[in-house]
Amino acid sequence: MTAIAIGLLGHGTVGGAFEQLLGERAVAVEQLTGRRPELAGVLTRSRGDFDEILERSELIVELIGGVDPARDYVRRALDAGRHVVTANKQLLSRHGEELWSLARERGVTLGFEAAVAGVVPVVRVLRESLAAAHVERIHGIVNGTTNFILTEMTRSGCGYEEALAQAQRLGFAEADPSDDVGGADAAAKMAILARLAFGVPVHIDDVRCEGITAITSDDIAYAREFGLSLKLIGTAERLEQGISVRVHPAFLYGGHPLASVNGAFNAVTVESEAITEITMSGPGAGGSQTASAVLGDVVDAIGGAPALAPALAPLPIVEDVVSAFYLHMEVEDQPGVLAQVAKLLGDAGASIKSVVQQGLGGSAQLMMVTHPLARSRLSVALEAIERLEHVRAAPRAISVINEEFV
Amino acid sequence: MTAIAIGLLGHGTVGGAFEQLLGERAVAVEQLTGRRPELAGVLTRSRGDFDEILERSELIVELIGGVDPARDYVRRALDAGRHVVTANKQLLSRHGEELWSLARERGVTLGFEAAVAGVVPVVRVLRESLAAAHVERIHGIVNGTTNFILTEMTRSGCGYEEALAQAQRLGFAEADPSDDVGGADAAAKMAILARLAFGVPVHIDDVRCEGITAITSDDIAYAREFGLSLKLIGTAERLEQGISVRVHPAFLYGGHPLASVNGAFNAVTVESEAITEITMSGPGAGGSQTASAVLGDVVDAIGGAPALAPALAPLPIVEDVVSAFYLHMEVEDQPGVLAQVAKLLGDAGASIKSVVQQGLGGSAQLMMVTHPLARSRLSVALEAIERLEHVRAAPRAISVINEEFV
Repeated sequence: MTAIAIGLLGHGTVGGAFEQLLGERAVAVEQLTGRRPELAGVLTRSRGDFDEILERSELIVELIGGVDPARDYVRRALDAGRHVVTANKQLLSRHGEELWSLARERGVTLGFEAAVAGVVPVVRVLRESLAAAHVERIHGIVNGTTNFILTEMTRSGCGYEEALAQAQRLGFAEADPSDDVGGADAAAKMAILARLAFGVPVHIDDVRCEGITAITSDDIAYAREFGLSLKLIGTAERLEQGISVRVHPAFLYGGHPLASVNGAFNAVTVESEAITEITMSGPGAGGSQTASAVLGDVVDAIGGAPALAPALAPLPIVEDVVSAFYLHMEVEDQPGVLAQVAKLLGDAGASIKSVVQQGLGGSAQLMMVTHPLARSRLSVALEAIERLEHVRAAPRAISVINEEFV
Repeated sequence: MTAIAIGLLGHGTVGGAFEQLLGERAVAVEQLTGRRPELAGVLTRSRGDFDEILERSELIVELIGGVDPARDYVRRALDAGRHVVTANKQLLSRHGEELWSLARERGVTLGFEAAVAGVVPVVRVLRESLAAAHVERIHGIVNGTTNFILTEMTRSGCGYEEALAQAQRLGFAEADPSDDVGGADAAAKMAILARLAFGVPVHIDDVRCEGITAITSDDIAYAREFGLSLKLIGTAERLEQGISVRVHPAFLYGGHPLASVNGAFNAVTVESEAITEITMSGPGAGGSQTASAVLGDVVDAIGGAPALAPALAPLPIVEDVVSAFYLHMEVEDQPGVLAQVAKLLGDAGASIKSVVQQGLGGSAQLMMVTHPLARSRLSVALEAIERLEHVRAAPRAISVINEEFV
């Protein structure tokens, strides 16, 4: 098997995470594609030489960001017949046509999944799954910083400045947040999505853009009366007279698939008559998430996995899984019943997270949620509980998926 | 440009929808791939001959369902060097390894996006975007019928039988719903997803499976006390001792990405350390949705779109878009103010959907949501409102995304 030499431009948060992920997943990439990825060189402001790295590489990963010098590097790499994978939304929303057309001419891949919505695979889904679909509209929460700020303002009732400071403390906003909160970052991403969805050139300057800096906590509080929640929404839609691509704060009703996307998450809804709609969501940024999207594009550029790889050796099937449980018991409303039930659960190793008891005349409904335990241990306890004098029917147990999400 | 001849096996709801979609999108497919798709023949119980269709086709779309005779047809098509696209989860969850390995040997594509979650592109994302990722867990709502029934039971408090009857009336459940409500349909899909995620063989018989027929409305009602909502969840996870693949009713806390997936929708959450999690959702079934997933696989099998296609002619950018608006005004608490404001809005063509007025001493907050209108017309009204005697500050207007979702 031959190696594939990768030149890495930029070694900030994402670049560092990509180098690490590439090391961790090199064997998996080789199993998939038949080629083992190897770093041929790293270019930063203080070390490395672009020409040398280009010479030694078959594929260039551009994680510098911004237009200059990234544009020149990407152009020269494509021109020299190298595949390029980039996370650079500013570059593509300004000079995408030039670069895509150069990639076409040279017959190389220009991957840019990581430029749009972090780990959310919207670029691939638009380019491939929906390639032949007639997309009518895209709504997206494509900036995690602003979604974090608006979520904080909604949750705590605090003002914009306070929520921004909180985002900065937690690393969800840069020291200079103007590209995020002013909407320029989201506008660049929406320009790229609109190009993919409609097949027409869309420049970032075509995107009408309004940020969140003028939003007050009152706006959010009052609109709750109508069941509305506030998001910074990017929209790309076909209209009778043309297209509209825009980014501005917007209210959503509770049932909208983007209404429940909170914190530093990204999400995109694609609408088309044949599919109705698809929504995809996930963490919007973060080094390892973006690096994972870059790696997906690298695998693709190397040649992907044309057929499903042969199955590995089977793994044992585990029957006795661990889960939290909701329990429901009908008991007589007698002193000591709860204690008896709690003891039997405790003996089996089930610790109780919450309890509700509701009396109904002489009988009572006892509902509990346990902390996670093996199903086999719970069964032992439930059998003993069923034999208790004051328990009227077999207890009912239903799994509770216990992960805590934002 | 050469045509590509497609043989269609099965002409039920999905088969019919695929034939129609193929006609509508043939030009788009040709633009993407350089080849125009053409139906070479249709096999149903009463018409067509498999051998003749196979002879004439370069690609076979199998939409018969079930194991026999679909297995024989798919095997013969692959063996004859034809690409195959199928929506057949039962077939793949029982005989997938045999068919995937045959496709590998013959160097042809076996596409099966439509077998798992309708239009939700989870197969592609697992096979491609996450091909090199280490997937730890998948949670899925992969059966629309049961999710519709549980949503109905939650919404109306009705029992299982009544919700099932409602699903049948609306076409979300078959006359014989046992494969859906018993969990076998979801189990087949989870077996396929587990195979993709973990790379090991998983047979439907490896999937522990419990349906929703024993769920009572009490289970749902009581668990609300804990903020829990009930779904039929498929889980595939890596554990220390092996893997677990299972389908059973489970409660979710409100913050879980699957908790807000209601009605006949499907959704899948993929967890991996590098990406944290990705959630994808969309309509779970329906002829045109499944047909759209099939078409995506057909485009892929023909050769996909290797590079981003050249941009079409630019479309005009529309500035004056139509939207519903949330309006907020600070007014003096005087008789007639609301009437004046409402008149100015009406003059501009803005019709009011809802109003809330809150008094605060001598002043009042007036909040409204309008029906959709052009932003330019709203601006005219807002300028006039600002000039009213009893209006204290410039009105604030924020878009409301007005689509009604399930």
